Amino acid sequence: MSFVVEPQAEMRPGIIELRWGDPDPALLPMEIIAAATNRVFTDVGPAALNYGTNEGPLLLRTGGGGGRARAARIAPRARRPLDLTEIAATNGNSPALHQLTTLLVRPGDVVFVEDPGFSLALRMFRDLGVELMGVSFDQDGLDVDALEEAVASVRARGVRPRMLYTVATFHNPTGVSLAPERRRRLLEIAVESDLLVVEDDVYRELVYHHEAPRSLWSLAPEVEGSSEFVVRLGSFSKTLSPGLRSGFLTGPAPVVERFTQSGLLDSAGCLSQFTSCIVAETVASGDYDANVARLREAYGARRDALVEGLRRALPASCAFTEPDGGFFLWVTLPEGIKASDLVPVAERHGVSFFSGARFSVRGDDRGLRLGFSMYEPVDLVAGAERLADSIAEVLASHRASGGAWAYSAEADRPGA
Amino acid sequence: MSFVVEPQAEMRPGIIELRWGDPDPALLPMEIIAAATNRVFTDVGPAALNYGTNEGPLLLRTGGGGGRARAARIAPRARRPLDLTEIAATNGNSPALHQLTTLLVRPGDVVFVEDPGFSLALRMFRDLGVELMGVSFDQDGLDVDALEEAVASVRARGVRPRMLYTVATFHNPTGVSLAPERRRRLLEIAVESDLLVVEDDVYRELVYHHEAPRSLWSLAPEVEGSSEFVVRLGSFSKTLSPGLRSGFLTGPAPVVERFTQSGLLDSAGCLSQFTSCIVAETVASGDYDANVARLREAYGARRDALVEGLRRALPASCAFTEPDGGFFLWVTLPEGIKASDLVPVAERHGVSFFSGARFSVRGDDRGLRLGFSMYEPVDLVAGAERLADSIAEVLASHRASGGAWAYSAEADRPGA
Repeated sequence: MSFVVEPQAEMRPGIIELRWGDPDPALLPMEIIAAATNRVFTDVGPAALNYGTNEGPLLLRTGGGGGRARAARIAPRARRPLDLTEIAATNGNSPALHQLTTLLVRPGDVVFVEDPGFSLALRMFRDLGVELMGVSFDQDGLDVDALEEAVASVRARGVRPRMLYTVATFHNPTGVSLAPERRRRLLEIAVESDLLVVEDDVYRELVYHHEAPRSLWSLAPEVEGSSEFVVRLGSFSKTLSPGLRSGFLTGPAPVVERFTQSGLLDSAGCLSQFTSCIVAETVASGDYDANVARLREAYGARRDALVEGLRRALPASCAFTEPDGGFFLWVTLPEGIKASDLVPVAERHGVSFFSGARFSVRGDDRGLRLGFSMYEPVDLVAGAERLADSIAEVLASHRASGGAWAYSAEADRPGA
Repeated sequence: MSFVVEPQAEMRPGIIELRWGDPDPALLPMEIIAAATNRVFTDVGPAALNYGTNEGPLLLRTGGGGGRARAARIAPRARRPLDLTEIAATNGNSPALHQLTTLLVRPGDVVFVEDPGFSLALRMFRDLGVELMGVSFDQDGLDVDALEEAVASVRARGVRPRMLYTVATFHNPTGVSLAPERRRRLLEIAVESDLLVVEDDVYRELVYHHEAPRSLWSLAPEVEGSSEFVVRLGSFSKTLSPGLRSGFLTGPAPVVERFTQSGLLDSAGCLSQFTSCIVAETVASGDYDANVARLREAYGARRDALVEGLRRALPASCAFTEPDGGFFLWVTLPEGIKASDLVPVAERHGVSFFSGARFSVRGDDRGLRLGFSMYEPVDLVAGAERLADSIAEVLASHRASGGAWAYSAEADRPGA
């Protein structure tokens, strides 16, 4: 018997859907996970299926082995020694961020986010009634001077600047990584401002060109006092499988303890007990590393194809980022064109994306996000061409109306 | 290679640990889950490992089949037809309760809980900064008249009475079920008071004597207007495996939608995608029902053994509940003995429990919880005898001191 299970990402026929940042189902390592799962039943036994410890199985936290020395294996490019009091299993970065926020941010506190920033984190913060403040972002990542000013302005009105949420490496939605000198300055600001930095490090291992920059968390020991201000969220959603809902966080022991000794974890135990055992088995066997290498090759080729396609097709008035890793790049449209107005035109041309307003606290809508994880290179090149065609159509309409923005997507629809 | 994974429940040598409510590892259905997992890889494929829809796989929500009619299969004794807009997958009752609370309860709102009530939910509510109010509880469950008065008193001081959290069936910590007439009255109060009732229904299927009472959720259509005020949390943690972290909630479509359309689920998708597919496979194959029948027999024998043991061993001045289902029963100590003072004595006698204060918002400490899920009948009888011995020791010390409570556990320790 075969069962259909619905994916989260909606794929409409005839449209190259560059809206999503899901792994390509064809690249999910079914065999590796199936083999690891079978080993969990034989090697681990019932403990994998019962309530787990709040901090998660040692098997995961140590990367399949003994003590401290091997702990970094679960995130091979961590480049920082790790004590077992500084790591906990999670059920993915979003739930971990959600739980950390409920534990550490009080109503009325301000949380800073990149603008543009990861849209769904913004929605989650809003659900929690947190006050969000967007901080400017450019080709070198978060504008740390702007952050410093924002912190001061918040403090001046008697409100607590509590947390910065950042995807500092292969940023969602832009693909940009925070420049090294800004990383150090950001850590200094965290110390000076008593600001907790939550580093969503989900894309770290998917690096296609150069090396991934060191995480804020791994740099922290080099910036005095900053180790107690950085929590890094790591995930196996992109490197193995999102459906497993397995991840981990590394951070200062008191923050990790607040997380693991919460009522939620006291009640449920590890929120990814079974699946974290599966992940740990893939790490211990070496399959995990092999899979990451395979994904870097496959997704890297997709990134290159889209970048090349855009280079050839987009008008010079458009700019776009050329990310070294992750799943996304960012196109900045010519002055006067709103990305959300481009959506229906693009979908008529057979390509889709998410427009900038979705990622912006301040409503900035001049950019758009393209996700390149779900299509083969040939489709991504076609997507770039379709996007260019729709931009050209909008620009032509723009010129025809005398330069003022007067394009109406509604009036231009077939049959309208 | 064999890997040791640590359980959440601490088991100390020489002590019969009746503190816990975990499934017995020996009763976890390893073969059933292993077989179902293998079928997920062959029958479902990559979709089980990718991001799932926010509401969770139809496969789970319909109990392995098509539409509405089969939906109730995932909780065989639900006794209420179910629309697919009224059910969502969760990753267990505690995370679901946590998320519902963050979405539906505002700071300053009051949440009512049974007193005694499930200690870890109390801790979770406290983590969220919610104001808790304990409501009296007796042999028929929650005192609904006291709830009505509590709601009025809260409203009188200008605060919103927002939610009641209740384990109405085979209550944790007492094993008591809410009496049928109180169920209907509770639903009326919910309507009259605009009070959301969150029914933690985790023990429903583990019924050993008589039938499980109908859930508040299944009764709601019979009490006018109350359907929109009841959310039921269902879980596979006790009937299959806690480590899978799979459960579901049923409730009014707007509440389910608020849950599924949250930022957290938009970001993470279904929080139990892979494991919910596994659970659904066990349901579709019939293995789930067979396993529940097996557990009812095994845990029922344990319940009977502990009840019989207590009947024979405890002094007449003690009372205890005789639950028809679930994992717990409750002992009420003679006047003047505090359960927390009994703990060190009992542990010296080789038996452990959690004392009442842990479960009480008001600090009531005359009762204690015994969990009977993790031991064979013979051990439970021994545990009852050890408990009786420790109570006798305390009572003797009590009498020796002239009736006034002057027993000091500290002074009585060997070597002290």
